[in-house]
Amino acid sequence: MSNTKTQIIAEPGKQELFIIREFDASRELVYQAFSDAGLISQWMGPCDMTCRIEKHENRSHGSWRYIHTDPKGNEYAFNGVIHEVCPPERVIRTFEFEGLPEKGHVSLEFLTLEALPGDRTKIVIHVIYKTVMDRDGHVMSGMERGVQEGHQRLDDMLARLKNN
Amino acid sequence: MSNTKTQIIAEPGKQELFIIREFDASRELVYQAFSDAGLISQWMGPCDMTCRIEKHENRSHGSWRYIHTDPKGNEYAFNGVIHEVCPPERVIRTFEFEGLPEKGHVSLEFLTLEALPGDRTKIVIHVIYKTVMDRDGHVMSGMERGVQEGHQRLDDMLARLKNN
Repeated sequence: MSNTKTQIIAEPGKQELFIIREFDASRELVYQAFSDAGLISQWMGPCDMTCRIEKHENRSHGSWRYIHTDPKGNEYAFNGVIHEVCPPERVIRTFEFEGLPEKGHVSLEFLTLEALPGDRTKIVIHVIYKTVMDRDGHVMSGMERGVQEGHQRLDDMLARLKNN
Repeated sequence: MSNTKTQIIAEPGKQELFIIREFDASRELVYQAFSDAGLISQWMGPCDMTCRIEKHENRSHGSWRYIHTDPKGNEYAFNGVIHEVCPPERVIRTFEFEGLPEKGHVSLEFLTLEALPGDRTKIVIHVIYKTVMDRDGHVMSGMERGVQEGHQRLDDMLARLKNN
């Protein structure tokens, strides 16, 4: 496991946040890890959950649905539409957690991949929310653990892919 | 032409705005006017432009693309994905004007239709933007004229539909 931390920036009172991380792999490879259903399912989400990709249409005007399962068998499903896929630098998509008490609390995610010297990659996920309360609720839902652990698993997967 | 005005609320410094309007027609009929491609093209946009619906998949995980043409033949195209359609009360979709100098300035729209007494309907379109600058740019682009004139044309169309 790497010790790199993902930075999550959520300024008080704003309806947006930023998730920032560097990976020791080329932009093409990191982009693939976010785009290929067979790769996504290997790293997305907390360490103790499995991730099933029910749908991942990797194209502009496509859509997606993922289901995370915890060790007790509880399922957590997420879905959205993909506004734009611009390989290997940008993906814009909506995001909704289906387990909320009420539907319609949808956010919009802008994933940007920047190539760094030394074959490294910086990703920024800019998320905008319907309300400040929606954002704060997402932050307090344990999202950070899922993101941190997922990105550590992604580090490990990228290292394996580079060595193959 | 009706004299009803559409209210546009954009608080300074926020990355969102609200478009609010009442119509003298049932929620089912107003919902139809926002959902049926053949109806949308009759009222959407400023009075002096025509609206061609290239694509309108009226379903959750669908997508859309409209093209407005001015009297000189200049075309203004818009597109997005539809996260959720919940008739007759809610539509959530992304929105992008293709004429911007740079791609990726996408907003997310939450359209809500509320049934009022006397067979009237109140709509609220809550739009969230990537940045405050994106929102301010949209407001200053002449968006208000397009919305006001479009809603006046929608008033007229709803009156015709009710009398048929």
